[in-house]
Amino acid sequence: MKLYFGVDIGGTQTKTALVSEQGEILDKRSFATAAERGLDDFSRRVRAELDLAVRAAGVDPADVQAVGVGVPGFLDVEQGVLVEAVNLGWVNLPLVRVLADATGRPVAMENDANVAALGEAWIGAGRGAKSVLCATVGTGVGGGIVIGGRLYRGVNGMAGEIGHLTVRREGGHRCNCGKLGCLETEASASAIIREARRLQAEGKLPQDGPIDGAEDVFALWRAGHAAAAGVVREAARWLGYGLALCAITLNPDAIVIGGGVSKAGEAWLALVREAFVEYALPLVVEAARFQLAELGNDAGVIGAARLAAHHVESL
Amino acid sequence: MKLYFGVDIGGTQTKTALVSEQGEILDKRSFATAAERGLDDFSRRVRAELDLAVRAAGVDPADVQAVGVGVPGFLDVEQGVLVEAVNLGWVNLPLVRVLADATGRPVAMENDANVAALGEAWIGAGRGAKSVLCATVGTGVGGGIVIGGRLYRGVNGMAGEIGHLTVRREGGHRCNCGKLGCLETEASASAIIREARRLQAEGKLPQDGPIDGAEDVFALWRAGHAAAAGVVREAARWLGYGLALCAITLNPDAIVIGGGVSKAGEAWLALVREAFVEYALPLVVEAARFQLAELGNDAGVIGAARLAAHHVESL
Repeated sequence: MKLYFGVDIGGTQTKTALVSEQGEILDKRSFATAAERGLDDFSRRVRAELDLAVRAAGVDPADVQAVGVGVPGFLDVEQGVLVEAVNLGWVNLPLVRVLADATGRPVAMENDANVAALGEAWIGAGRGAKSVLCATVGTGVGGGIVIGGRLYRGVNGMAGEIGHLTVRREGGHRCNCGKLGCLETEASASAIIREARRLQAEGKLPQDGPIDGAEDVFALWRAGHAAAAGVVREAARWLGYGLALCAITLNPDAIVIGGGVSKAGEAWLALVREAFVEYALPLVVEAARFQLAELGNDAGVIGAARLAAHHVESL
Repeated sequence: MKLYFGVDIGGTQTKTALVSEQGEILDKRSFATAAERGLDDFSRRVRAELDLAVRAAGVDPADVQAVGVGVPGFLDVEQGVLVEAVNLGWVNLPLVRVLADATGRPVAMENDANVAALGEAWIGAGRGAKSVLCATVGTGVGGGIVIGGRLYRGVNGMAGEIGHLTVRREGGHRCNCGKLGCLETEASASAIIREARRLQAEGKLPQDGPIDGAEDVFALWRAGHAAAAGVVREAARWLGYGLALCAITLNPDAIVIGGGVSKAGEAWLALVREAFVEYALPLVVEAARFQLAELGNDAGVIGAARLAAHHVESL
């Protein structure tokens, strides 16, 4: 039996899973990342979780072939170095070496949007497709590309960074990256909240509660508020446009959309797809199935496990 | 010795070349396509050229392993069928079978932008790169993607159809594809001619001669006409923006630009790159060398020969 240990590092919680070659989760758990305690401490806790998982699943520790890690930050994969993870406060750390020492197994790492994409492409909404474009729409907009079952990272890991497509050349908002009108500033949960608050301040949305998250705006939309519907539709259309730009380049057979905003469901997805169809070529539209992610919060750990399997094959 | 016969079908002329495994051209010739005489007649002429080339090069006919063909049209590569080539007036023809019968060799086909990309990636401006984005900027704007030395065609051959990225959402022109503001309508030779003629009609460009081609506008630009410079710059900037959108998806290490408009040279390329840098992420910019195509009119036949070699390997 070949098993892989997937680790999905988040700003507050880190999730882990012991995953079989077929993508079955034998054990799943999570712990507080507590990044401020440093990488060595973190790595020891990952090892402890791995040991717990092996015992809980009743498997032979020797069957765990490798560890895969999804990291919310920028990586130098070739050197095995985490260059910077703003949310963790980690800079220039030899993540692969330290984790390999702690776990006694080969370690592969990738950014979190990429491992989630790999998970969805493997056994989620993208399964069976030759070429998968995954978008993760939450506070920001991330993306990942899987071609022939393998992560396509581009030459320095930036492939599929669709959140920074300049979609809105006129009247676009300032992005953290410094540019104006990035997909992330127009289509994310942050964009939806920003626009809804603006309308609320103008008295065009109900004042009876603060808008804390995109789900508040979705609730107003479902309750029939026209201004909220406008905000949702606008953000969804920017996303559809951005996905069309990617799809004309990539010509995928599956486009998978996950992340917090995608919980708005099929009605929201229909708005995204409407703009996608408008801006993509008919043959590109025809080739691409368009669907919501299926693995939810497990996409990261499952994709990380798959990454570990690919890593072992390449050794 | 392994040789491949590359065929680049054009609306008026068809070019052929006998190419070695290393990309050396042993013989090069061209003939009038005369598509109206039909595919059977055309295929017999390809065979005659192949025989001539073999004799002229003094090689053993048995060394010619396969034929690769670049076609200006939409193809069903899996079925070996040319679906439609508007400029040839050919519709639904079993191109691969007929050419294989005529030449007595395995035949592989691809659209012309893709074979040109493969040629440039193999031994042209993209050589040595892992991931190459090629743009062909002429009457229209075509594109091709080569990953790991292999053509990446997407799931139905539409990958890299960058001419139909909607770049100009406000005030864009109507494209042949039916959409507004496609890269092709804003950055091609046709766009440059259209805008220059408009300015000429408004008396803002010299009236002493008609504008027959983009090269007339480039000549005025070089002669210091501000309005012509504006036209050139605007078209170049749309191209740079479109390439940035592709590059954020693909994260290539080489971006190669060919086609008639690229003959405007390095000063034009600098304008394209200026916009590219503005819209692509810094790490994407850093990874990608940005250069003019090197193979000129030979890119098609060389890429077609390479396609033939890949085809033989896959048999």
